Amino acid sequence: MTQNKTLIFKKIPTGLPVEGEHLVVEDRPIDLTKAPEGGLVIQNLYASFDPYLRGKMRDPAVKSYTPAFEVDHPIANSTVAKVLKSDTPDFQEGDLIKAFVPIAEYARVEKAHLAFARKISNPHNLDLGLFLGPLGMPGLTAWSGLYKIGKPKKGETIFISSAAGAVGQVVGQIAKREGLRVIGSVGSDEKLDFIVKELGRSLMMRCPRLAPDGIDIYFENVGDDHLEAALISLNTFGRIPVCGMISNYNTPRDQQRGVKGLFQIVTKQLTLQGFIQSNPEYGPAYTQEHQEKMQQWFKEGSVKAKLHTTEGIDKAAHGFIDMLTGGNFGKAVLKLN
Amino acid sequence: MTQNKTLIFKKIPTGLPVEGEHLVVEDRPIDLTKAPEGGLVIQNLYASFDPYLRGKMRDPAVKSYTPAFEVDHPIANSTVAKVLKSDTPDFQEGDLIKAFVPIAEYARVEKAHLAFARKISNPHNLDLGLFLGPLGMPGLTAWSGLYKIGKPKKGETIFISSAAGAVGQVVGQIAKREGLRVIGSVGSDEKLDFIVKELGRSLMMRCPRLAPDGIDIYFENVGDDHLEAALISLNTFGRIPVCGMISNYNTPRDQQRGVKGLFQIVTKQLTLQGFIQSNPEYGPAYTQEHQEKMQQWFKEGSVKAKLHTTEGIDKAAHGFIDMLTGGNFGKAVLKLN
Repeated sequence: MTQNKTLIFKKIPTGLPVEGEHLVVEDRPIDLTKAPEGGLVIQNLYASFDPYLRGKMRDPAVKSYTPAFEVDHPIANSTVAKVLKSDTPDFQEGDLIKAFVPIAEYARVEKAHLAFARKISNPHNLDLGLFLGPLGMPGLTAWSGLYKIGKPKKGETIFISSAAGAVGQVVGQIAKREGLRVIGSVGSDEKLDFIVKELGRSLMMRCPRLAPDGIDIYFENVGDDHLEAALISLNTFGRIPVCGMISNYNTPRDQQRGVKGLFQIVTKQLTLQGFIQSNPEYGPAYTQEHQEKMQQWFKEGSVKAKLHTTEGIDKAAHGFIDMLTGGNFGKAVLKLN
Repeated sequence: MTQNKTLIFKKIPTGLPVEGEHLVVEDRPIDLTKAPEGGLVIQNLYASFDPYLRGKMRDPAVKSYTPAFEVDHPIANSTVAKVLKSDTPDFQEGDLIKAFVPIAEYARVEKAHLAFARKISNPHNLDLGLFLGPLGMPGLTAWSGLYKIGKPKKGETIFISSAAGAVGQVVGQIAKREGLRVIGSVGSDEKLDFIVKELGRSLMMRCPRLAPDGIDIYFENVGDDHLEAALISLNTFGRIPVCGMISNYNTPRDQQRGVKGLFQIVTKQLTLQGFIQSNPEYGPAYTQEHQEKMQQWFKEGSVKAKLHTTEGIDKAAHGFIDMLTGGNFGKAVLKLN
């Protein structure tokens, strides 16, 4: 057995998880000598930190769209990994894959879980971390929310909350390509700077009230005061793809502030639609389109991405909690040694 | 000139309007001897009291989908009227029409406003008050919200807030015809009794938590705690036609309680859509379909309606305010002497 440092869910938090109490890194030794029957042994190169994971750190009695984590078990999520041993003809030693496994140095993938593994097609030799960001789940989330629900029309204005985040920065750049005026809110001056200077061509502002002609699409990542401000600025027949409401993830329901002014949904004939990128009705062709177009745009340099990288499994709990409080700047990933 | 008692908007209220202060009935003498050039003189038989009118009793500086009333001017709304004088070949003396005029005993309809008048087609000799309810704006509101946004499928469950109201009682009966399980909330035991006994075939309950398999459509008329309860009970891919939020109409924004638990919009992939029955994309064929089918159903007795009638123009202010506080029971109308 080989040492295998692993991010473990230790205790259900009521507010923000605390490193060492709710999340710890522990050695969970692993057998690297031989793949499971029909399965793989892999080495993780990158692991993804995503806000939705907070929703799984709950009492399992509370129902949700995704199962709760079990206490004293690893935190599992998307990773980019290298195949070390394979007992299936579908994968060869050395293949680079996307996997869904514990956040750990190594992992064993049973045959039954191979459905969650797929080879990475990376013809332009892009940074592998991107496959957890704009080319992974957050990128597909941006893609589906913007196109399927936002229904952008050239000349319209979009307001994006958490515009420097993993999803928000992709939404803004695609929207700009589609000829929209892009307004975003961000959590710090540093993030504002990045969006204005590095993602450049987008006009970014901190408040939708600065949009003189109102907004047509509000891409919702935050909730609460952001949603209230957007409702005031939205034009008739405005669309709100509801991607997340991170302001509520660490707040028990009875302590939430509540959202006022919802009556504007009627007066402005607004549509709010919640979505999850795995919605099966979007289908595989749709996923393929996202992948091919975005890879091409990265190669051309017409879209860019910021990754926020935590280095080393020892810092996994710290990096994860940092992401939950908005300390990350761009898509949060863990780079394993 | 002839005496013409008229419901006048006297002062902008901050909360609930008060009879004699914000709303008064005054004589505004009228010329009944001759129609305006190309126009009509009419006698109002019924006038409609609708919650949306509260939204027009505001500071005109506040934008909304419908213009504000002017202080010291009449409250205008839909009426059923008889033509007394006509200066246009489109209408004859004695015709029964739907009009949009001041709530008063009589009204003059200028040529420019004839677009808001239309003859009533009443082949089954139905109660004329129905043309302000199930066969009028509230009925078309129910029709469009249920079919265009609710997208009902046989076997699903719908929860209707304010189920005994002008819109709610139509939604419930149509939904039942479509093979849905119908659950409604009402404001009093008397209303519950009416819905269960008189509208009969619908299973009505006071709380969506009583729906063991959850709800698929929430027809929103109330807001606040009703919306929160519905969000908890809604199934994945649930639809919320947002028709109104009467709990907020008399509450200044800073005193609203706010709605918690909106994150369920994401986890359950819900769609909330605000609408107004006058949405032009629904088109005239759609309006015609509503009219013909509903008239037929009334004739057969397969749908029923409850009108809440205030008798006499002198009681107009009282009846209007009563409707705003839920004192009405069914569609609120004023019957003029």
